[in-house]
Amino acid sequence: MRSFMSIIVLGTVALDTVKTPFGIRKRMLGGSAAHFSMSCRLFTSVNLVAIIGEDFPAEHIDFLRRKGVILTSLIKGNGRTFHWEGEYKGDLNTALTLNTELGVLSAFRPTVSEEQRKIKHIFLANVDPDIQRHLLLRMRSPSLVGLDSMNYWIHHKLRPLKRLLKMVDIYVANDQEAKSLSGEDNLIRAARCLRFYGPKMVLVKKGEHGVLFCSDKFIFSIPAYPTEKVVDPTGAGDTFAGAFMGYLSQKGKINADTIRRAIAYGTAAASFNIEDFGLKRTSRLTLKDLRGRMLRLRECVLF
Amino acid sequence: MRSFMSIIVLGTVALDTVKTPFGIRKRMLGGSAAHFSMSCRLFTSVNLVAIIGEDFPAEHIDFLRRKGVILTSLIKGNGRTFHWEGEYKGDLNTALTLNTELGVLSAFRPTVSEEQRKIKHIFLANVDPDIQRHLLLRMRSPSLVGLDSMNYWIHHKLRPLKRLLKMVDIYVANDQEAKSLSGEDNLIRAARCLRFYGPKMVLVKKGEHGVLFCSDKFIFSIPAYPTEKVVDPTGAGDTFAGAFMGYLSQKGKINADTIRRAIAYGTAAASFNIEDFGLKRTSRLTLKDLRGRMLRLRECVLF
Repeated sequence: MRSFMSIIVLGTVALDTVKTPFGIRKRMLGGSAAHFSMSCRLFTSVNLVAIIGEDFPAEHIDFLRRKGVILTSLIKGNGRTFHWEGEYKGDLNTALTLNTELGVLSAFRPTVSEEQRKIKHIFLANVDPDIQRHLLLRMRSPSLVGLDSMNYWIHHKLRPLKRLLKMVDIYVANDQEAKSLSGEDNLIRAARCLRFYGPKMVLVKKGEHGVLFCSDKFIFSIPAYPTEKVVDPTGAGDTFAGAFMGYLSQKGKINADTIRRAIAYGTAAASFNIEDFGLKRTSRLTLKDLRGRMLRLRECVLF
Repeated sequence: MRSFMSIIVLGTVALDTVKTPFGIRKRMLGGSAAHFSMSCRLFTSVNLVAIIGEDFPAEHIDFLRRKGVILTSLIKGNGRTFHWEGEYKGDLNTALTLNTELGVLSAFRPTVSEEQRKIKHIFLANVDPDIQRHLLLRMRSPSLVGLDSMNYWIHHKLRPLKRLLKMVDIYVANDQEAKSLSGEDNLIRAARCLRFYGPKMVLVKKGEHGVLFCSDKFIFSIPAYPTEKVVDPTGAGDTFAGAFMGYLSQKGKINADTIRRAIAYGTAAASFNIEDFGLKRTSRLTLKDLRGRMLRLRECVLF
């Protein structure tokens, strides 16, 4: 395993029950780390760090392994797998959470192997900031650390989150989180402001409106890939982050060109994720598919 | 007057009272046709078709004339000038209308000179669809007709609006109007669907999220110019349309390249409009300013 070609993702592996105007799916494979892995695997080898419960179907483990995800740090806890239940209505832009069962997640302490500790590219997908920090402190010499979070932690664990922000390179937030954490109504100001919490780079996900990136050097902003068929947006942000981090990790260098391209790949990946329930579409995604949409997206913004 | 280098804009010339977090301005010069003219004049000679009341300050007429706007079809009616009063809060994305006094607008029948009837490029800014149609039928051989409207007419004059849509080339709508008129929640589907009402081209304005363009040939979508200072968004859509139509009119040919560039110029123009109250910023706008932001916007989406 060449460490520069690997990535560590910490997050959730969940059972998701999702209802949208297109139907309902019960206890399907989901979670931030699972969605992340499904796009990231196209670029680099993904080491998944997460916890599952005793009820977790063996077929899901086989599935992840078949997709090339490295599962040595996927641990099994005593109890039930994290379960999220949500519903989307209308334009499917916002999820209504109907139920959350933390299960084994509430006692999760991530572990990584000595070999994995050498990996330099890390993505801390959405879990408790204390858990994210716990893993990050275990890593020997991270060179690129991405962080996702959610509104819940901004409201309930602001201090740990702020402490963590000082330790990361890229903060990935959605528009509501960016506004909420920065206290700014204007999204450009919000993104700029968040850099003062620590991360050199801020990526604001705006759902159907695309992505805004902000560093001290430049602003980059592209729309979402124009998609007429939105079946289930769950995990779109994680799928975005997976391709984004995966591309950067594969390229091995972080500059304006690779960041712009990584965001375009992330945008393309997210557009596949939302076309079907759960991981259904991204599990059969190829780099060729992804590249095709990335190029069409370029034409959409060309002038 | 070379007719191909001219444009006709029908719309309102109003007195606007606007309250935003940055202050309040009372009875300042505004209206859809006035905002349109202020950006359009940078590209082509603008013939304004509108009505004002007896209370309309002479200084505003002088101002418009000084800016090169042709006022031969700006008529004075018996009564008061159209007055709009609105307020913006928070992120300034939506206007709350506090009061509307139609005044002379309620009896407006637009007239144009014989010379103006030969003009080929026409923009029907937001007024009653019957008034818009009345003017359009007066034109001898329009070659490019743009139409703006508002939710009010979708709800109260749907039939005249639909009849009018059959007669225009470009329909400019905001996202809510596009969804409302098409009955589609997904904006891409909404834009595609609206083409079946008649216009070959549909332009959806999404405020801070930019613009989506849709024809039978291509989709074009760019974000708004990244602006940290939003003082008064009133007229941003009209300012957008002014530069968009002005650029196309100046170029004289409508193809994918000129449309993309026109939308970029429109986006740049709108970003100036929102930086100050009313026409304050756009009245001193130069083509050089506009071009500068157009080029920076290109960098924002480049990958």
